[in-house]
Amino acid sequence: MKSINFDHISANPLLPEVKAAMIEAINSDYHNPSSQHQAGELAAEALEKARASVAKLINAAMPKELVFTSGGTESINHAIKGVAMANADKGKHIVTSNIEHNAVIRSLRRLKSSGFRVTSLPVDATGRVNPNDVAEAITEDTILISIMHSNNETGTIQPLEEIAKIARENKVIFHTDAVDSVGVVPIDVQKLGADLLSLASNTFYGPTGMGGLYIRRGTRIFPLLDGGVQENNKRAGSENLIGIVGMGKAAELAERDLESRLAHVKKLKSKFLTELPDYIDEYIINTHEQHSLPNLVSISIKYIEGESVLLMLDDDGIAVSTRSACATGSLRASHVLLSLGLSHADAQGTLVISFGVDNTESDVTALLTSLKNVVSTLRQISPLYHKLTAEN
Amino acid sequence: MKSINFDHISANPLLPEVKAAMIEAINSDYHNPSSQHQAGELAAEALEKARASVAKLINAAMPKELVFTSGGTESINHAIKGVAMANADKGKHIVTSNIEHNAVIRSLRRLKSSGFRVTSLPVDATGRVNPNDVAEAITEDTILISIMHSNNETGTIQPLEEIAKIARENKVIFHTDAVDSVGVVPIDVQKLGADLLSLASNTFYGPTGMGGLYIRRGTRIFPLLDGGVQENNKRAGSENLIGIVGMGKAAELAERDLESRLAHVKKLKSKFLTELPDYIDEYIINTHEQHSLPNLVSISIKYIEGESVLLMLDDDGIAVSTRSACATGSLRASHVLLSLGLSHADAQGTLVISFGVDNTESDVTALLTSLKNVVSTLRQISPLYHKLTAEN
Repeated sequence: MKSINFDHISANPLLPEVKAAMIEAINSDYHNPSSQHQAGELAAEALEKARASVAKLINAAMPKELVFTSGGTESINHAIKGVAMANADKGKHIVTSNIEHNAVIRSLRRLKSSGFRVTSLPVDATGRVNPNDVAEAITEDTILISIMHSNNETGTIQPLEEIAKIARENKVIFHTDAVDSVGVVPIDVQKLGADLLSLASNTFYGPTGMGGLYIRRGTRIFPLLDGGVQENNKRAGSENLIGIVGMGKAAELAERDLESRLAHVKKLKSKFLTELPDYIDEYIINTHEQHSLPNLVSISIKYIEGESVLLMLDDDGIAVSTRSACATGSLRASHVLLSLGLSHADAQGTLVISFGVDNTESDVTALLTSLKNVVSTLRQISPLYHKLTAEN
Repeated sequence: MKSINFDHISANPLLPEVKAAMIEAINSDYHNPSSQHQAGELAAEALEKARASVAKLINAAMPKELVFTSGGTESINHAIKGVAMANADKGKHIVTSNIEHNAVIRSLRRLKSSGFRVTSLPVDATGRVNPNDVAEAITEDTILISIMHSNNETGTIQPLEEIAKIARENKVIFHTDAVDSVGVVPIDVQKLGADLLSLASNTFYGPTGMGGLYIRRGTRIFPLLDGGVQENNKRAGSENLIGIVGMGKAAELAERDLESRLAHVKKLKSKFLTELPDYIDEYIINTHEQHSLPNLVSISIKYIEGESVLLMLDDDGIAVSTRSACATGSLRASHVLLSLGLSHADAQGTLVISFGVDNTESDVTALLTSLKNVVSTLRQISPLYHKLTAEN
């Protein structure tokens, strides 16, 4: 049975060129980029080439503003804790939103126990923060605003340029978690006006467990990993050069192919949304119609549980997710969906469908067909469904 | 010209079997180990297999005591900062030594600015901490002792079992930086009695930028990376599965081949030390004769600069180092060597020669021959040498 991946938000496949670059790096026997001999210099060249590619993808003014990390989570922890610690003398107040990734929420929770105060802003029913709320939340001792670029469960994109402008006017450092955006939609740190931006390699078909933190020159921030002088003194530790080379190649390809990838996933998403009513009824689309990632749809199907749908689709060889893979194992309903105003029951019936370059239109048809059968089967055994439909 | 690596302390080559395992992982298109579908389960299996191999290498009681990290530096930061934050209510005093790796020193420096107190113990002329000093340093509010297993610049091994016993008797958490030991000498966390142990994959010929932190069950510690529920809730972030698979394979081979590797590097080190007087004179061996890594020699050659030797050996195709690669770019003399009582001048003349499975006896002869020429050339142009030899 052919296996179809509609869970790209959890894992994108490595592109063939990325695989080839990583295998070449494995066979290159790179030495330590910090070593002073010629073998070290060769490694340093490979490192800096990759840095330039990733920096270019987000239009950083200079490559050294990009620090390699072990993934989006480290980038986010570094940004939030690093700014908090370095600026605690100025103030201890941070502004964020209610729908951030767990890496943001839990980093902030950690800081709260060290005396920081956090204002977490609500979102409207479409999942967006109101920039006016950000402006109103800023106090004299606000040192950081951290608002995500796109949400990993709904795909909704925030009005970041307006928020960044407010941050700049108030001289507050602005971080954005762009982990699910970089490489999917055009991201330009100059246009966005972000001081710090977290990104992850796998989002643009590079290796998982690799990421980057953009740190605008002059931003006051401490390292999260203290030790050696690697990464321009911003992140200690010998570099994962094989992963970095793969990430660099993936960034190069993402920059080259962004438009065609965008068009491809847009087409698939549009086909899915347009044809969905022909296959199932009674569902809610949680993804913003206009301001959202082109590769993701969040859909809450009434009267059934997302996890059951996931498992039955899996039996048909189709992978989807119900929420952030980082939250798997947690039994609580998604804080993101509840923030949109969804009921617990509807939140439980949520599926996240995420498209990738490897998906075809016939994959979408297969998904729709399978979904129809699964939903019908599950509703037949759903007491809730029978109760509610009997009432009407 | 054949290139010979005597800088294994900075970078070990990947073993062929490790390369093959990583390439297989690259071509396996693993999904996210946290995902609930079958593709996720396959990834989770690969992850847990690797965890079991690394846990076995250090004789952890159960695999889940081993947390995968992005390298030795992250492991050390996690151990030190994680214990400090989780136990600050009990006390704010930490005991360490003067010759620790920068990751330890700078993590502790960071904590000092948050009100922690640090007692840093001296070492004797052979580079060893006196366990009695540890016992005396412990106060009522001591929450952590962090002493490295082996030193990365001299190879000297500390009397850790005695120190661990003192820690246990005083109910203080004990961490050891075993980054340069695990996979080189037998390490058994039960015998050592460590609560926390940091290790790095590249030390046992796995990929660089990958590591592990052993956390004995019941040890009170916070994550360094907050976010998702990965790694049994101890380290958030999607895993670098390709790196982890390589590290697992490397651990498996290290366990199998430890004895023969040990014998191999011991033989080379012995040859080097035995024959060295036939090639050069006036040098100091900084490595402990008995308690030291079998694969490393630190030698301070009088009247010349280590960096000049390094560059000239590099011209002969031989890679060595002068100090920790993590400290490259720092102009100050090594804090480790100064702690041994070496003069600044002697510290500047230091070379670190580190042997590996890829070295042969004829490589050692080539090193000695080249070293003789280099030292002779450099001393001829050394004003210091002429002044001092004229005086005698």
